[in-house]
Amino acid sequence: MKIAIAGYGNLGRGVELSITQNSDLELFGVFTRRAPESVKTETGAKVYSLDDIIKYEDEIDVVVICGGSAKDLPEQTPALAKHFNVVDSFDTHAKIPEHFKNVDESAKEAKKIAVISGGWDPGMFSLNRLYASCILPVGKDYTFWGKGVSQGHSDAIRRIDGVRDARQYTIPVPEALTAARSGENPDLTTRQKHTRECFVVLDPGADKERIETEIKTMPNYFADYDTTVHFITQEELNRDHKGIPHGGFVIRSGKTASGSTHVIEYSLKLDSNPEFTSSVLVACARAAYRMQKDGLTGAKTMFDIAPSYLSEKTAEELRKEML
Amino acid sequence: MKIAIAGYGNLGRGVELSITQNSDLELFGVFTRRAPESVKTETGAKVYSLDDIIKYEDEIDVVVICGGSAKDLPEQTPALAKHFNVVDSFDTHAKIPEHFKNVDESAKEAKKIAVISGGWDPGMFSLNRLYASCILPVGKDYTFWGKGVSQGHSDAIRRIDGVRDARQYTIPVPEALTAARSGENPDLTTRQKHTRECFVVLDPGADKERIETEIKTMPNYFADYDTTVHFITQEELNRDHKGIPHGGFVIRSGKTASGSTHVIEYSLKLDSNPEFTSSVLVACARAAYRMQKDGLTGAKTMFDIAPSYLSEKTAEELRKEML
Repeated sequence: MKIAIAGYGNLGRGVELSITQNSDLELFGVFTRRAPESVKTETGAKVYSLDDIIKYEDEIDVVVICGGSAKDLPEQTPALAKHFNVVDSFDTHAKIPEHFKNVDESAKEAKKIAVISGGWDPGMFSLNRLYASCILPVGKDYTFWGKGVSQGHSDAIRRIDGVRDARQYTIPVPEALTAARSGENPDLTTRQKHTRECFVVLDPGADKERIETEIKTMPNYFADYDTTVHFITQEELNRDHKGIPHGGFVIRSGKTASGSTHVIEYSLKLDSNPEFTSSVLVACARAAYRMQKDGLTGAKTMFDIAPSYLSEKTAEELRKEML
Repeated sequence: MKIAIAGYGNLGRGVELSITQNSDLELFGVFTRRAPESVKTETGAKVYSLDDIIKYEDEIDVVVICGGSAKDLPEQTPALAKHFNVVDSFDTHAKIPEHFKNVDESAKEAKKIAVISGGWDPGMFSLNRLYASCILPVGKDYTFWGKGVSQGHSDAIRRIDGVRDARQYTIPVPEALTAARSGENPDLTTRQKHTRECFVVLDPGADKERIETEIKTMPNYFADYDTTVHFITQEELNRDHKGIPHGGFVIRSGKTASGSTHVIEYSLKLDSNPEFTSSVLVACARAAYRMQKDGLTGAKTMFDIAPSYLSEKTAEELRKEML
């Protein structure tokens, strides 16, 4: 199975690394909008111009599209699904129905499979919300994120005048986790569920107090949370906050009709958010190829993928070793 | 969607209760090998003789078979799959390939869907082992059971001469759980992973010491574990150990190719093992019916069920509300 990567940032690098761990997959190459000769890959994989990708239509089984949800994927996924089985990690929640529809039309016409919104949230967390709600239809869901770096919140701080660099951690509140696991289905506010911790490097002479206030009162991003701000040096940020850890918890507690309480919990603790996300995308790429071989077409999410399609093992091996 | 229950013990009662929580499902009735007039159902559902079930072929969409894995299911599931979509919770691991084959032949011939080995282990735990191993192919799995009642171990104690009643709890060792979550992939022995705690009611005049030794040295069941034995009265057992709680943990830790560590954990905390298991079976029943409507046939496990088939919601609703 030959996989191509479209877009070579953190996620693309993660896909490249993940393919080396799967013996049935082979990396065809990396496609980039940059000058191919300027891109150095982790494994020495060949680099091509994204403009040329259609030329390799017959040589590539699946394209994993590693662009951003804001601008890249709404264009790239429908366009590439006209020629390839594709996988993306589209995560702009409000626009998923529109994206699904656009991609579905392209993929159906081309008789290809396009898996959208792969990863862990959306992705594995979504699957766990789905499974748990089917088993316990009378119950309540809780999703917690972290401890982990939020790129969006870090960027929001960086846009403040006087800020040179920043890193923001989203942290679940331990008491809220305990409450969610209690089986008592408490209502938890935004502020009760997560805190936000910010590490900020200032420009020389910048006004600490004004910046701290601007962060803490920023609507949508910070105003609804208890937020802590630490001012540190660029050296400290580089030394202590280089990683991109993340994770979280999906908890559903519910009652069966006799009144018995049941709690289902799924959690992730990830050293590298993009590497884990790309590992999910690679499993989805295998599924896309095999579903298309089985005559299926169109846009799919992980909800539509029978789990056995994701695995390198045969159905017999899976029943024997994992059931 | 009309569901019938074949076999009316703890599991059958759980299925009956679960159906009341799912608005798209209706209970057709309970089929039993006992005299129908001797069976009183939880919800007042109609009771029929199991011998008559074929008469209702056109009125029943799915039969959830709630018999035992040792003697009932190897006969009943292949036989009923010749006439109905069926679901069972077959859990004799070594015989799953044979059972699958027998059921598959019946179901394919009848163009029906037969979901075997539904529940939580096999079932949801199996699914989590599968998903986690696809995402982190380089890693290690740990399954812990409990704290919960093991029916098999309780029965084994009851068979000892001088024992009137018994209840056995399987308990995961907290240090082993911590080690499994550490990301260091330790090797854990049977003894390191679980302890066993037994509550035993003696016959009048029975020999405590001999019985405690017989329990603790029983091969397969107890000899490989650190086992604690408490002698209590029947009243105490009835008062404090009536419930059938269970649960457990599936943990996989693995490394992506850069060396980053990731830990995936799924856990269940169940007040009632049979009620939770039957809630899973009911979701599988919905899936069986819908898969057959889509033209699929044959034996399936939860590995083969696209998750969206399990849900009452439409694909659009799922993408909007859960993705």
